[in-house]
Amino acid sequence: MPLSDVKALVFDVFGTVVDWRTSVAREVTAVAEAKGWSVDAYDFADRWRSMYQPSMEPVRRGEMPYRRLDDLHRESLLALIAEFDLKGLNENEVEHLNRAWHRLTPWPDCVPGLTRLKTQYILATMSNGNVALMVNMAKNAGLPWDTILGAEPARNYKPVPSVYLTGADWLGLAPSEVMMVAAHNGDLAAAQALGFRTVFVARPTEHGPNQTKDFKADQAWDRIVGGMDELADSLGC
Amino acid sequence: MPLSDVKALVFDVFGTVVDWRTSVAREVTAVAEAKGWSVDAYDFADRWRSMYQPSMEPVRRGEMPYRRLDDLHRESLLALIAEFDLKGLNENEVEHLNRAWHRLTPWPDCVPGLTRLKTQYILATMSNGNVALMVNMAKNAGLPWDTILGAEPARNYKPVPSVYLTGADWLGLAPSEVMMVAAHNGDLAAAQALGFRTVFVARPTEHGPNQTKDFKADQAWDRIVGGMDELADSLGC
Repeated sequence: MPLSDVKALVFDVFGTVVDWRTSVAREVTAVAEAKGWSVDAYDFADRWRSMYQPSMEPVRRGEMPYRRLDDLHRESLLALIAEFDLKGLNENEVEHLNRAWHRLTPWPDCVPGLTRLKTQYILATMSNGNVALMVNMAKNAGLPWDTILGAEPARNYKPVPSVYLTGADWLGLAPSEVMMVAAHNGDLAAAQALGFRTVFVARPTEHGPNQTKDFKADQAWDRIVGGMDELADSLGC
Repeated sequence: MPLSDVKALVFDVFGTVVDWRTSVAREVTAVAEAKGWSVDAYDFADRWRSMYQPSMEPVRRGEMPYRRLDDLHRESLLALIAEFDLKGLNENEVEHLNRAWHRLTPWPDCVPGLTRLKTQYILATMSNGNVALMVNMAKNAGLPWDTILGAEPARNYKPVPSVYLTGADWLGLAPSEVMMVAAHNGDLAAAQALGFRTVFVARPTEHGPNQTKDFKADQAWDRIVGGMDELADSLGC
């Protein structure tokens, strides 16, 4: 089926659209300076993110009812605060730090590229982030989504098929009319297996010096690009 | 609680944001001319809309699982086509006419007013329309929603409380932080009973010469305005 049938682009967000590592480290640094902590902010960010996939597993396996990512992030944060032995955060400060994920900064190509893509396509998130997180991030960063899809509508987490399929269904589109955009080959493989079209966006610095995979496309996805501006060029927007 | 706590504005759409009657009549006129039908297009639009509330009742009463508004609209349309004895529509033409609701025109104050309101508030739909209908309408008309809420997330129809409450919950907000904007006193009463703030927007020509109610606010809602531009003025946007 030709790409001319594509009516919507749906986006992975953490790593693909926003630079979570630098953004979280920046917020941790600010708190550490205020509290007098000695902590490696990038290490803290990496450890927090490393708890992300395991925290969703019980939901994916059906062993736990859906809980939104804000709540999973918070549990991980509390465990990390104990592990790093960081003292002196009150309840509001914990909540503010947890909401660092609502304030992540986009890669520089994203706002201009998405703004161009929006003129010809429906743009939606297809993220494991909950709706409030995605809406607040978009307001803060100027991300021009038409609507928020992903985990919360399906009450489950990618790569569980219902997450992708509920998104297409809510848009009233067949999977072949929807193109998944992600910096992670595994996310694209899950979407492609369901009939979605695919775009790989290279984000080789997502994990800083610790990146071990997803430096490049490992399959012949429908498009392989270096950023959203290049995707807009490629689609004639 | 003061209005300064309000973080999101959620909008009824049919009648409040878009002029469904003129828009549907325009589409019916175009089809009638192409097919050589003699039909009162405003009468057709009014009859179609009159089937809207009854079509949702079985879902609200729990007698029928949730079905999206596109499907309810289509059933009503097929019944009307038979009743008006209109001949010669093929399947694609029925679908195109049913999607007249995806192409409704906003009242003139809406795009400029909402664009101003968006600078200070999260803007979301709180409509009985399904996500695809709302997204396509927004793309067609330039409505600047941050996300689509309403019937589909709750799998039910206003004024059932779960529709309003799911919307606030997905935004991560208390009802008191969300202001419902509608041209219908009943919609505002349902939202207010759940703790939402309220704005009445007068749309005295929504039903043309057949309008029988909602000419004005019947309670002291938090704001009473004549359009979205006046609401933006009132909220200092």
